[in-house]
Amino acid sequence: MHKLVLIRHGESTWNLENRFTGWTDVDLTPTGLEQAKNAGRLLKAEGYEFDVAYTSVLKRATRTLWHVLDEMDRTWLPVVNSWRLNERHYGALQGLNKSDMAKQYGDAQVLIWRRSYDTPPPALEATDARCERNDLRYAKLQPDQVPLTECLKDTVARVMPFWNEALAPAIKLGKRVVVAAHGNSIRALVKYLDDISDDDIVGLNIPNGIPLVYELDDDLKPIRHYYLGDAEAAAKAAAAVAAQGKN
Amino acid sequence: MHKLVLIRHGESTWNLENRFTGWTDVDLTPTGLEQAKNAGRLLKAEGYEFDVAYTSVLKRATRTLWHVLDEMDRTWLPVVNSWRLNERHYGALQGLNKSDMAKQYGDAQVLIWRRSYDTPPPALEATDARCERNDLRYAKLQPDQVPLTECLKDTVARVMPFWNEALAPAIKLGKRVVVAAHGNSIRALVKYLDDISDDDIVGLNIPNGIPLVYELDDDLKPIRHYYLGDAEAAAKAAAAVAAQGKN
Repeated sequence: MHKLVLIRHGESTWNLENRFTGWTDVDLTPTGLEQAKNAGRLLKAEGYEFDVAYTSVLKRATRTLWHVLDEMDRTWLPVVNSWRLNERHYGALQGLNKSDMAKQYGDAQVLIWRRSYDTPPPALEATDARCERNDLRYAKLQPDQVPLTECLKDTVARVMPFWNEALAPAIKLGKRVVVAAHGNSIRALVKYLDDISDDDIVGLNIPNGIPLVYELDDDLKPIRHYYLGDAEAAAKAAAAVAAQGKN
Repeated sequence: MHKLVLIRHGESTWNLENRFTGWTDVDLTPTGLEQAKNAGRLLKAEGYEFDVAYTSVLKRATRTLWHVLDEMDRTWLPVVNSWRLNERHYGALQGLNKSDMAKQYGDAQVLIWRRSYDTPPPALEATDARCERNDLRYAKLQPDQVPLTECLKDTVARVMPFWNEALAPAIKLGKRVVVAAHGNSIRALVKYLDDISDDDIVGLNIPNGIPLVYELDDDLKPIRHYYLGDAEAAAKAAAAVAAQGKN
């Protein structure tokens, strides 16, 4: 039996400011930092050990991982960063306030942008200062691999190669894997693992900074999954995520 | 022309307490943390960019690197940890106070332990609680790869394979490399690069947290080297290292 641990980063400054974040590289808030440390303490208290850690190229996830490893006294573990674990790209909405957008376009439209499986938000112009195509960290990618917007379906399509080529092979080799990533890149993994429908996955909310454990059989099929720590706290945190962007 | 940047970790708690550290995994002091951040600010101000970063499996070096990358806004860079970049193992002296040892055994003996090229300090017993052979981070090594003591010659012997198999190939591929490591693992690299004699290398002191830049030709022969930032500050910091362990 294999265990895979998924952790959504702690609260970010733009979570707090209720802004669409996507690929914008904002940092953790003091609360987010505490959530990250707490995830590490939980994993340590439960006796978890890892052989390799994966995260995105966005600092809110990397920093979450660093704090987790620090609390576990495992700062020496190998860490692999991949753009494929990045948050869903939020297109032209990146940086804008969720409530402002709801007032301007209505709750229904914002809900489509936030929760439709296959309708992306309006795309960024490639000339927009917010476009990441000139960011050094993506320099080795083909320009069209750096999205101008994404729906969750697009995010799933770019996360899955990383599952197939990095995560699944590592787990099959017996490596104990932890992934510190984002709400939607974790949704992509959960959708695949639990074979969740396109309609249902958009209603599934991943709380910040609470380790989500998947027990997998030899074929990497899930036996069960659960959040570490206080189940009620996890449910409340997930509900708080769902409530963002309401007027 | 290639540039290689070497950074000795910031001040550690046992640097401050004047204790022999070696492979003991002590953390940075607040001063050490500031030194690390300052190294990152210097590199950023001078426009340095890196493609890959290397560090030891000891947290004072890893944390130094993390702060450097953080200040440079390059937390997404790949980081490789290797035990081969660890500090020299200090044998049975690990944890003991340098001044106490000088009082007990005399300055001359302590100077031999600290600065002889080929005389190691007394070895740890494999059964000593301080012995690292049961430490998870070394679990994949052969037991005799985990030293019970080391002279600088031994450290050079274990660092060089990492130069030959990891650092040099990366640099030859055109990768811009930063290494956050320790006084003696950096001495090992400097000894090789500048072809410094066994007698002279032991007198060369590497200051904490000041980036040391090597400009290398296509055959990785040094063209020149220099410390970034205030030259006088670097010289003073190196002298402070040399003065440790005096009565």
